Amino acid sequence: MRRIMLTVAYDGTGYHGWQRQPDKNSIEDVLDECLTKLLKEPVRVIGASRTDAGVHALGNVAVFDTQARMEAEKFSYALNQRLPEDIRIRASREVPADFHPRKTDSVKTYEYHILNEAFPNPVERLYRYFCYVPLDERLMQHAAALLEGEHDFQSFCSAGAQVESTVRTIYECSVRRDGTRLSIRVRGNGFLYNMVRIIAGTLMEVGRGKYPPDRVREILAAKDRRMAGPTAPAKGLILVSYAFPALAEPETSG
Amino acid sequence: MRRIMLTVAYDGTGYHGWQRQPDKNSIEDVLDECLTKLLKEPVRVIGASRTDAGVHALGNVAVFDTQARMEAEKFSYALNQRLPEDIRIRASREVPADFHPRKTDSVKTYEYHILNEAFPNPVERLYRYFCYVPLDERLMQHAAALLEGEHDFQSFCSAGAQVESTVRTIYECSVRRDGTRLSIRVRGNGFLYNMVRIIAGTLMEVGRGKYPPDRVREILAAKDRRMAGPTAPAKGLILVSYAFPALAEPETSG
Repeated sequence: MRRIMLTVAYDGTGYHGWQRQPDKNSIEDVLDECLTKLLKEPVRVIGASRTDAGVHALGNVAVFDTQARMEAEKFSYALNQRLPEDIRIRASREVPADFHPRKTDSVKTYEYHILNEAFPNPVERLYRYFCYVPLDERLMQHAAALLEGEHDFQSFCSAGAQVESTVRTIYECSVRRDGTRLSIRVRGNGFLYNMVRIIAGTLMEVGRGKYPPDRVREILAAKDRRMAGPTAPAKGLILVSYAFPALAEPETSG
Repeated sequence: MRRIMLTVAYDGTGYHGWQRQPDKNSIEDVLDECLTKLLKEPVRVIGASRTDAGVHALGNVAVFDTQARMEAEKFSYALNQRLPEDIRIRASREVPADFHPRKTDSVKTYEYHILNEAFPNPVERLYRYFCYVPLDERLMQHAAALLEGEHDFQSFCSAGAQVESTVRTIYECSVRRDGTRLSIRVRGNGFLYNMVRIIAGTLMEVGRGKYPPDRVREILAAKDRRMAGPTAPAKGLILVSYAFPALAEPETSG
């Protein structure tokens, strides 16, 4: 048996998220079905990030085991001929048989995309959160920088999530404006449930002047979800890339 | 009766184009129905550009006549509360009662969007043509510049279209690369059927080295559709804006 790693991009609009569903309408279900047909052996992928319904990805990661002799790099081409257009395999490679994408240290990069103008734009409606209130990206950047480093992010975790520790390290949290388009980029060693969307919702409250940037310190210290801003809608979120330092090669995606 | 002008943005993915259809699945049908319900009087809009199925718009233009007393600027808000999310009215204003958007001199701006990388990107698949062959944007820019000015664009017009003259003036034809994203911007006083898509298809042939840039001169001179490149797919095309110099105010959009 060989273990193959896939770099998976998808438009989450039409799916109930990454994780297997009874109605089979998940990214994982589609990959399982497609691989099972292609390889004529039962396949179940293991995913790195179980993204929520409506969240998009450029570089999520999945692994599966196979006895097929196909060159590892060719799985991407073979799968792309069978997958629906809203799921694409950007790369495939062999990894050690014991490599598990959720149990291996990794650096994850997310972006949250916002359209900040008077009217929503139909051709961006599925991939950007629309906000007509002017957002001050300098204030947002100031607040974002305060989230960098190792912190207890309990205030940025949806209630009900059960995890051993809510401490995470954020390597980068930055805000960039390009005309009317804002993007929040967050890179870290791990994320709690809804963490990036709560960060985005909180930074937007800062951007529209509801919170001063320094409020972020108080929110972190409170360890209380109710102190942070709302959870920003799923459609603005995209999982950009996964990097596994233990694997020889560089990041999975842009 | 007053004549109201709407600036209309839409995602063309789900529609059979601008023009009324027997199955009512067109932008025009949706606007007619929505205005008729809103104003409780039969309304039929007159459109500026009858975009093809799958073509998008940021700033198409439509006018309609009404006896309603609503402030002209408020039509956009009232319509956006009733329209599906893939159609948005960006502005509404009163225009002279004899203003006709297809019989008035105008400057039209289109963009053609291309994703030029190894794998298609699911979240851009509906709005960019995907081309994995590397495109040389400098060659494309060289060729594009040769299309600027007044020319007979018969070679860039789909066969079968009946028009009095195939002479048009292009004020700008330019190619810009931003990483793996290319955009072709074309601004002119009028466009023949499929003209921008044939320009895009021709410039991509130049970009991948099939035609030298100077071939564009021969294509223009031949006045023969078969000399130009293929008609690029609809989904990469977006009607960016309409400007009517005879109306007091500036461009309708981006």
